[in-house]
Amino acid sequence: MSFSPLIRQLVDALRILPGVGQKTAQRMALQMLERDRSGGMRLAQALTAAMEGVGHCSRCRTLSEDELCPQCADPRRDDSLLCVVEGPLDVFAVEQTGYRGRYFVLKGHLSPLDGLGPEAIGIPELLARVSVSHFAELILATNPTVEGEATAHYIAQMLAGKGIILSRIAHGVPLGGELELVDGGTLAHAFAGRRPIAD
Amino acid sequence: MSFSPLIRQLVDALRILPGVGQKTAQRMALQMLERDRSGGMRLAQALTAAMEGVGHCSRCRTLSEDELCPQCADPRRDDSLLCVVEGPLDVFAVEQTGYRGRYFVLKGHLSPLDGLGPEAIGIPELLARVSVSHFAELILATNPTVEGEATAHYIAQMLAGKGIILSRIAHGVPLGGELELVDGGTLAHAFAGRRPIAD
Ligand SMILES: [Zn+2]
Ligand SMILES: [Zn+2]
Repeated sequence: MSFSPLIRQLVDALRILPGVGQKTAQRMALQMLERDRSGGMRLAQALTAAMEGVGHCSRCRTLSEDELCPQCADPRRDDSLLCVVEGPLDVFAVEQTGYRGRYFVLKGHLSPLDGLGPEAIGIPELLARVSVSHFAELILATNPTVEGEATAHYIAQMLAGKGIILSRIAHGVPLGGELELVDGGTLAHAFAGRRPIAD
Repeated sequence: MSFSPLIRQLVDALRILPGVGQKTAQRMALQMLERDRSGGMRLAQALTAAMEGVGHCSRCRTLSEDELCPQCADPRRDDSLLCVVEGPLDVFAVEQTGYRGRYFVLKGHLSPLDGLGPEAIGIPELLARVSVSHFAELILATNPTVEGEATAHYIAQMLAGKGIILSRIAHGVPLGGELELVDGGTLAHAFAGRRPIAD
């Protein structure tokens, strides 16, 4: 079957969504056209507004169109705790554990083979923030993958001897997994079971 | 966690897509913002163009922004066969069987309890088209549900005695199923095994 050009373009465009293959994209396109055109228009407007307007929080570097994201702007959170994660989706995952400290969001993990060193993922900004803040503890919640472990280890080395407790989430997170895919209960357990990093 | 307003609006808007819940919508939104903003903008443009521009084929009533859809405009298809389906997604499913006749796309099926009678689903337009064409056979490929069967039966009654073979797809389509969800092989089998409808 061939769709008319506008439908074909919509199907192609929907395939940029994670987990959406050709058949799912066709169902999405035709279902919107048949049953919810106003919803489709709202989605188009929300996409445009977000793609053009969303930048990064000036403090934690997560995605936000405001100078400070809701987590950084909230005066009731614990200023003595900083949780370091690999990306904005991890903030969402960690929030579900009940954690209510602050965050720093890296741009992924160290990946020397891809040319991604400390500067590329925002470690200088992390160190600068730590140096002007008074965190009692840094929770290194990078993914429990080889690269995530190496990234946590690198940060721990850079901050060793500065009188800050450096901890790493541990129990419950499956090795080789992605933090953002772990359920909230497992991640809460991993948080409770965090341990200091030995130098 | 709270997202900033533009991200929250995007997550809400993505949930109109079939099969997309809260968690999937969050992943979609953040992944586009982090990794593919130009893809997100293309999707916004494709949505706007399709929602505003796509209407219905003047002949078969499927979704199309052109006066005639690709199936109706193609001069090489078999003009002696008409396949009647409940919606545009079914055209896609039937095409995968290798069928290369013509189509008529109803607006769903008869549903008296919802006030959907023959006019509401386009049966007068179907009868008008049949009366000015020279189809040798009508394949009634409505869904194998109670409503789809009733719709096929109603159409067969209206066209009885006009010298047109009326057939119904049969073997291989699971009862109570949705045509658009059946794999191409099963549906090809159902087409091959179609049988005339007894008055
Ligand atoms: Zn922030
Ligand atoms: Zn058509």
